[in-house]
Amino acid sequence: MNKVITINRQYGSGGRDIGRKLAEIYGVPFYDNELISRAAKESGFAEAAFENAEEKATNSLLYSIAMGMNVFSAQEIGYAGLSLDDRIFLAQASVVRKVAESGPCVIVGRCADYILRERDDVVNLFIIAAVDFRIRRAVEIDMLPQNKAAEIVLKKDKTRANYYKYHVGERWDNVLNYDLAIRSDLTGIDGTVVALKAYLDAIESL
Amino acid sequence: MNKVITINRQYGSGGRDIGRKLAEIYGVPFYDNELISRAAKESGFAEAAFENAEEKATNSLLYSIAMGMNVFSAQEIGYAGLSLDDRIFLAQASVVRKVAESGPCVIVGRCADYILRERDDVVNLFIIAAVDFRIRRAVEIDMLPQNKAAEIVLKKDKTRANYYKYHVGERWDNVLNYDLAIRSDLTGIDGTVVALKAYLDAIESL
Repeated sequence: MNKVITINRQYGSGGRDIGRKLAEIYGVPFYDNELISRAAKESGFAEAAFENAEEKATNSLLYSIAMGMNVFSAQEIGYAGLSLDDRIFLAQASVVRKVAESGPCVIVGRCADYILRERDDVVNLFIIAAVDFRIRRAVEIDMLPQNKAAEIVLKKDKTRANYYKYHVGERWDNVLNYDLAIRSDLTGIDGTVVALKAYLDAIESL
Repeated sequence: MNKVITINRQYGSGGRDIGRKLAEIYGVPFYDNELISRAAKESGFAEAAFENAEEKATNSLLYSIAMGMNVFSAQEIGYAGLSLDDRIFLAQASVVRKVAESGPCVIVGRCADYILRERDDVVNLFIIAAVDFRIRRAVEIDMLPQNKAAEIVLKKDKTRANYYKYHVGERWDNVLNYDLAIRSDLTGIDGTVVALKAYLDAIESL
């Protein structure tokens, strides 16, 4: 398998697990949200900026100072005038580009489909599932409280859709953004992996 | 294969051919736009009404008379006050429901996914492809003139999107309407069929 596979997914659809299984099957690296974030931080992007972002702090002078201390300074790569969120996105995008350059892999989230849109070796997948299935998984796997799970699942969808809309400028649920979009609950996680493997192998053999 | 498969598709994506091949593989009936329209006509819906609709004639008194002459009269099934387009849609919807009731099959177009939304044995597919691939197919297979093909392909997409929006009330390209959406040009038509078969078999085996 000589492709870079990107995966967008509805919360609770099992997209991350599906990505990890595909990476195992093909023996290629797997990068999820957390790994990309960590790599972006370790690449020199001020840790403090990330922490503050997560806390939604608003001391922008402090951020500016933190930003000025690391390799992604405004002067060096033209980040001047960008919000902290945008700077974090750009640092992560830089990581996404680097891992894609190192060869075939699976990347989950982070608008990787958009970031890598100029490459011709990328296959973009979208994993969806019926909301009941996703709520059940959220309770069983992510340990969400039963009485809050439905609300949290729908809120997470909205957050991901907004994140995509903000950074990409397009609708997250537009089928035309993806090479293959698939509902995981009709087949279960393993059945979805089988179908995706059939598609990826067919691409390979063309 | 014990499902009713519906296929929506971008013009030139090969969705119809893919549907026919799936029907052959599973040994189930195949219904395309043309067959559904013909069956709706033959079921008693006045032929004249269809012909006039295609010519976009506006003599609504004539239509009303034509409508009154067939089994789908306004009184019988509550079509009163509906436009001719709506009446045709309802007659076709009735055919779609009937063929779905007779057992597993493949139905292309006609918003069958929406018409059959209450059934739990339906799998909804959407076939897309890069516009260059679709233009090439439109020229080679549908014999569109080279210099008009791009324009016609884009116009057909728009017509299908509008048709769906009008009758279903939702965006045609919303990934959440489908169980699986797939780009046919990365794998070619036969590769797409292989991937879809893997998905349908995985559903079956769950």
